[in-house]
Amino acid sequence: MIDNKAFYKLSYGLYIVSSVSEGRKNGQIANTVFQITSDPITIAVSINKQNLTHEYIRKSKLIGISVLSEEAPMDLIGRFGFKSGRDIDKFSNVSFKTLDSGVPVVLDNTVSYFELHVEKEIDVLTHTVFICKVLSSGLIKDTNQMTYQYYQDIKRGKIQKTASTYVENKEKPVSEISNDKPKYQCSVCGYIYDPDVGDSKSGVSAGTSFENLPDNWTCPICGVSKDKFNQIN
Amino acid sequence: MIDNKAFYKLSYGLYIVSSVSEGRKNGQIANTVFQITSDPITIAVSINKQNLTHEYIRKSKLIGISVLSEEAPMDLIGRFGFKSGRDIDKFSNVSFKTLDSGVPVVLDNTVSYFELHVEKEIDVLTHTVFICKVLSSGLIKDTNQMTYQYYQDIKRGKIQKTASTYVENKEKPVSEISNDKPKYQCSVCGYIYDPDVGDSKSGVSAGTSFENLPDNWTCPICGVSKDKFNQIN
Repeated sequence: MIDNKAFYKLSYGLYIVSSVSEGRKNGQIANTVFQITSDPITIAVSINKQNLTHEYIRKSKLIGISVLSEEAPMDLIGRFGFKSGRDIDKFSNVSFKTLDSGVPVVLDNTVSYFELHVEKEIDVLTHTVFICKVLSSGLIKDTNQMTYQYYQDIKRGKIQKTASTYVENKEKPVSEISNDKPKYQCSVCGYIYDPDVGDSKSGVSAGTSFENLPDNWTCPICGVSKDKFNQIN
Repeated sequence: MIDNKAFYKLSYGLYIVSSVSEGRKNGQIANTVFQITSDPITIAVSINKQNLTHEYIRKSKLIGISVLSEEAPMDLIGRFGFKSGRDIDKFSNVSFKTLDSGVPVVLDNTVSYFELHVEKEIDVLTHTVFICKVLSSGLIKDTNQMTYQYYQDIKRGKIQKTASTYVENKEKPVSEISNDKPKYQCSVCGYIYDPDVGDSKSGVSAGTSFENLPDNWTCPICGVSKDKFNQIN
């Protein structure tokens, strides 16, 4: 018997894995970044074959790792985790630096970075595990890194279906006791629209019910439209 | 440039990785256990080629993973992490269960377990990465799992030289302001003998200086003799 609850006890970090190909940059959220050997240092990174970052990594053999800090806001995670680089330039309006190899690493809400060169590719069904040599690494800020558990527990973050660690949750979303104006949850990224809070980023004041949001309002985290939201209380 | 501090920001859990070969059981501490794909579920485990568990895994293709809880005491970690199965039966005096395949998982201070079958072996210099199918998994206790950071920060645990994530620490060990009787630290596992505390397990009462410990006294964590200890204050 396989009990999914056992999997929630495995520990991971949360990273932006980036690459570059023919001058185009892209990056995505991943949690499977880990050191394999210490002398010389080898790091493994697992990426879903469907992702644009996967395509860039295979072409350039270059990977940038940006280790997210605990303070990383959901919109940064949403930008890299729930949008596709085929639709937007994920690095616009994000501060980053380009390392010697040309690979970018994010400087906003990150604690350290790695510049990697792929030495070996391992095909594992839906994913490729890239075994990499470390070209350079650096500390950005000496604060706590984000763990996957912190992301799920504290940030109430959702997991994308293409993630290594996706486990289908057949339970109803957590609903909180509330007033007359119901909350709505984004089915893509898990963001909850709370009428008592509004959405100041989009100029929506507290007290605005979901029904009264403008038709062109989109999820502040992942950018999907109102019809992707479900009432949760 | 490679800055070692960057590596301390990668997140891991702490696990007992076990195997069985020709009826003999063994297990060791590891931090590189991670899910790679979700459908079907694949788990990767990285193990140093020098270790006895590595030999057993290669022979039987079977791996047990016991996810340690935050409360796991240093002597359990020391038993599995700093002693060799070539010298002792690590499973004696430890409660465990044998799964259908014959692989044992530890029930003391663990939160969940996995029974894995190796499908692919990846040679990565000093280590082998085993890519595994999940035969079974279960929750043992729904408390916090031990993270690698918790182990280092709270438990002040040391890292073995054969670990994936070993980074040589050239700084002096943390010394604490103390009284006349100096503390001594084990150079193998990092255990600190504090004269104010003694070592009740070995019948050493509080107030006993390191010099007055019997000659046959050994480290309560990893079992090495007194000459492997260094004064730290």
